[in-house]
Amino acid sequence: MRGAPECFPCSLNQVLKLMRVAGADDETILRAIKDSWEAIRNFGLEKSPAYVATVAIRRARKYFPVDDPYRELKSQHNKLAADMLERIKPILDSSPDPLKAALIVMASGNIIDLGVHHDFDLEGTLRRNLEEGFARDDYGPFREKLKRAKSLLLIADNAGEIVFDLHFLKSLSPDLERYIAVKEGPILNDVTFSEVSGFDTGDVKVVSTGSDGLGVIFEEVSEDFRNLFEEADIVIAKGHANFETLDEAEREVFLLLQVKCQVVARRTRTPVGRAVFLSNRSLARQEGGHDA
Amino acid sequence: MRGAPECFPCSLNQVLKLMRVAGADDETILRAIKDSWEAIRNFGLEKSPAYVATVAIRRARKYFPVDDPYRELKSQHNKLAADMLERIKPILDSSPDPLKAALIVMASGNIIDLGVHHDFDLEGTLRRNLEEGFARDDYGPFREKLKRAKSLLLIADNAGEIVFDLHFLKSLSPDLERYIAVKEGPILNDVTFSEVSGFDTGDVKVVSTGSDGLGVIFEEVSEDFRNLFEEADIVIAKGHANFETLDEAEREVFLLLQVKCQVVARRTRTPVGRAVFLSNRSLARQEGGHDA
Repeated sequence: MRGAPECFPCSLNQVLKLMRVAGADDETILRAIKDSWEAIRNFGLEKSPAYVATVAIRRARKYFPVDDPYRELKSQHNKLAADMLERIKPILDSSPDPLKAALIVMASGNIIDLGVHHDFDLEGTLRRNLEEGFARDDYGPFREKLKRAKSLLLIADNAGEIVFDLHFLKSLSPDLERYIAVKEGPILNDVTFSEVSGFDTGDVKVVSTGSDGLGVIFEEVSEDFRNLFEEADIVIAKGHANFETLDEAEREVFLLLQVKCQVVARRTRTPVGRAVFLSNRSLARQEGGHDA
Repeated sequence: MRGAPECFPCSLNQVLKLMRVAGADDETILRAIKDSWEAIRNFGLEKSPAYVATVAIRRARKYFPVDDPYRELKSQHNKLAADMLERIKPILDSSPDPLKAALIVMASGNIIDLGVHHDFDLEGTLRRNLEEGFARDDYGPFREKLKRAKSLLLIADNAGEIVFDLHFLKSLSPDLERYIAVKEGPILNDVTFSEVSGFDTGDVKVVSTGSDGLGVIFEEVSEDFRNLFEEADIVIAKGHANFETLDEAEREVFLLLQVKCQVVARRTRTPVGRAVFLSNRSLARQEGGHDA
C-alpha cells in the first residue's frame, strides 16, 4: 500500500523507541533520528510504510549500542504468550469453531508490540476479540480453500505472537504441508530464523524471507521464499508490515492483524483496536467500489 | 526546559495534525512536514520543546490553505467549556475550598486539546482531578502569597480552557489587579488577543505576549509583557508550552497543567494523565536533590 504523511514521523518514533529500548542516551538518540530522516527524506507517498520504516531503522543501526536491542524483550514476550496459551487452551478447545478461535487468538497476539513498559493488554484484547470477532472477516472463503489446500504458508510477524501462530499451524491437519516464514535477521521485535529454532515447531517447516526488512519487500526476499510465496495454496500474512507490503500482492493473501493506527484503519475501513482477517482480493474489490 | 529526542517527531506530528485540521491533501501535508523538519534539523536538546514546535509550525504556514486552521475548533471548544462550566458551577460553589476547586477545573480544561475528533474526556478528567487532586501541589504556598498579593498575571494557553481561566480570575478579590496574557496571533489552538475580546472578561485586563510563539519565548515577547511578567506579585502559567518555556524562569512561576506526554512526565515526576500545580521553585529544589 501507499504510505501516508503520518508514516514519516511514525518511522522516526520507531527508531526512537528502539534506541530507548537499547538504552542509548538522549544525544545519541537525537543523532540517530536525524540521520534516519536523511535516509527517508526523499521518499514520497508511493513507498509502503513498512519500507520507509525499514530504511529509517537500518540507518539508525550504527547508533545501536547492541546488535539486537529487542532480544531480551522478545524473549519476555515469548514467555508471556506461552503462559497465556496454557491459560486459554480450555477456552480454545471448547469453542464451537476451534479453527476460527485459533485465528482470533493469533490476531490478538499481534497486540504484543513494542511495549517498552508492557503497555499492552493481551488478555483484554483477546477476550474482546473472542467476543466481537473480526471487524472484517473472510473466514468463510478461507475455510473453503483450506479443505482443498495441500500447502499453507504463514508469514509471521513478532515475537510473542509466534507462540499462537505455531499453535494454530500445529492444530491443522498433518496432511497439509505447513510453512512459517520469519526474518533472516533482527529488526524491531520481529522473530528471526535463529530464534524460532528454539521452539517446538512440530512438523511445521521454518523458512526465512531472506531479508531483515519489515514485511515482505519483494526486491529483497530470497528466490526460495518467493517461490514458496507464489506456489503455496494458501498464504496468511500477519501484522501491520506484512499488510502494508502484501495488500496489493498479485496472488491471494489472507491478512490477519490488529489494526493499530489510523493509516491502516483508513485502508481497512476498520476502527483502531479491532482485529481483521481479510483477503487482499476483498480489499481490491473495495477499491473497485464493491465493498467486501 | 531542555528538549528530548521525542520532541522532534512530536513537532512534526503537530504540523501534521494542523494540516489535517486545515483539510490539506496528503501530498501537501508531506511537503509541509519535510519542510518543517528542515527548519528544526539543526536544533539540539538545549532548545525547549515549545520553541522547536513553534519553529516547525511557522515553517509549515505557507502550506496552510487557510490563515487559522483551528478557528472553528477553537470556537467549538469555547462553547463546550461554557456549557460544562454551567453544569459544574454547583459543585464548585459547594466545594469546601472553592479557590482550589477552581484551580483544579482550570487544569482539567487543559485536556481540551488538539482534539480533531473530540477525543478527549473533559468531564471524566474533571471528575478525576476533583477526586484525586494535584499530583504535585503547591497550593499551600500559593494561597499564602495570594493573601498579600496586589497583582496576578495568568498566562493562558488554549481555547476552551480560557473559559475556566476567566471564571477563576473573576472569582478573585476585586482588590487584586488581574491580568490574562494570550497570544498575539494564531498558533495551534492557543487563544489570541482578538478572540479573547469576545468574552466577558469583567475587570480582568487582557494583554498579549506580543508573540505568536508557543509558551513564552523571551527573545520574542513584547517589552510590556516582559515588564508585567517581572513585576506581577504572582504569575500562573498554564499548559505544556508555558511549562516548557517557564520552568526555569528567574522569578517564581506557578505552573498549572495536565501532564500529557512522557517528556513532561519525567520532568515533573508525575504520570501522564495527572494534573499538577507546581512552583518552578519546587522544581529547582528537586533538581538540587531536595524533592519538593
